[in-house]
Amino acid sequence: MEQLKNKLLQMSSLVEAGIERSVQAVIKQDRSAAEEVFENESQINMIELEIDGLAIDLLALHQPMAINLRFIIAALKINTNLERMGDISVNIAHTATSLIEAPRIEPAIDIPLMAGLVQSMVQKSLDAFVARDADLARSVLVSDDAVDTLRTASYFQLLSFMEKEPGSIRQGLHMLAVARNLERLADHSTNIAENVLFYIKGIDVRHNSEVGGITGPP
Amino acid sequence: MEQLKNKLLQMSSLVEAGIERSVQAVIKQDRSAAEEVFENESQINMIELEIDGLAIDLLALHQPMAINLRFIIAALKINTNLERMGDISVNIAHTATSLIEAPRIEPAIDIPLMAGLVQSMVQKSLDAFVARDADLARSVLVSDDAVDTLRTASYFQLLSFMEKEPGSIRQGLHMLAVARNLERLADHSTNIAENVLFYIKGIDVRHNSEVGGITGPP
Repeated sequence: MEQLKNKLLQMSSLVEAGIERSVQAVIKQDRSAAEEVFENESQINMIELEIDGLAIDLLALHQPMAINLRFIIAALKINTNLERMGDISVNIAHTATSLIEAPRIEPAIDIPLMAGLVQSMVQKSLDAFVARDADLARSVLVSDDAVDTLRTASYFQLLSFMEKEPGSIRQGLHMLAVARNLERLADHSTNIAENVLFYIKGIDVRHNSEVGGITGPP
Repeated sequence: MEQLKNKLLQMSSLVEAGIERSVQAVIKQDRSAAEEVFENESQINMIELEIDGLAIDLLALHQPMAINLRFIIAALKINTNLERMGDISVNIAHTATSLIEAPRIEPAIDIPLMAGLVQSMVQKSLDAFVARDADLARSVLVSDDAVDTLRTASYFQLLSFMEKEPGSIRQGLHMLAVARNLERLADHSTNIAENVLFYIKGIDVRHNSEVGGITGPP
């Protein structure tokens, strides 16, 4: 169990670093930050497979019960979320690279603010897992609405910008993709927080208030 | 185990129907098809919770081994994929509603072709699970590239269309969203096929050739 927990922590650190680097690549137009994200991807994929293997061995060999069983189920699910978050940071880093190559545009949208909020959600959801802190996990669920609101605002700002400057549509689409991917990271943090509550409390809070990005703009 | 399998089949049917209806809502501008998708969503969410509960009970009470353990792990993961696919069909149905309300545009993009390919992938991945058919599962992994290619082509066609007709940017963004969501459905089918191979063969084919939508346009 301890080994599984340590691997998940290693995975979390890599994914958090990837998100931070991909956000910097967008905001500071920093190509080397994007390249760090690409380099870390194969390691994240490798650890994903190791974590699943460990969790399945624990289930097969030790027949865990109650909170130990819930811990392993949560670990399997959080592992899937973390791997997808790694993929999303790779997507953001790719978009950053395209934005660096294109002429710079400056629509006044809240990408840095959104990114800060999302990074805080990611960190809180993982801290809640490590510290078994149900209140911290619940605070993540609440933040998801703020990210959705910022994303919707960015969407309409970028839409209006592109209508006025059709020559900047390509860059506008990249900015929309960054905002959308940030929102998906927030959704995955929400999923992690839900799994943490299941693990600590044995309660299933999914679908109580629908989270997961099924409303809002395209 | 039989009960778990039956619940997964019930979930699969609902999700397949949701995808079919949401695609019809886009292609035929059929508002009632979109509404059917919205109506089914809460049932899909409810069955997701039931399946997770059944799988966890099986793990806790029966300490399954080997292929039975792999079946339950695969069921847990496929369940997550199916629920996300349900959310994506809701997204597509929302976009369909927006497209019905906006003036109709007709850029020559391959949404119907893409939709047909994606629906075939979804069906094959679920048939492979039921029939324990490894070859059928492998055929899904191959189709994913075709969907990615069609999506990239649609992206550049829509980009060029929006640059020429800035008044249609709003509808263009909706069409881009449909293409992107179809590609995400293909990614989830690929994940299901990978889980089927793990369940039948005990092999893990993830990350052999990177699938999952981390390349391509934003």
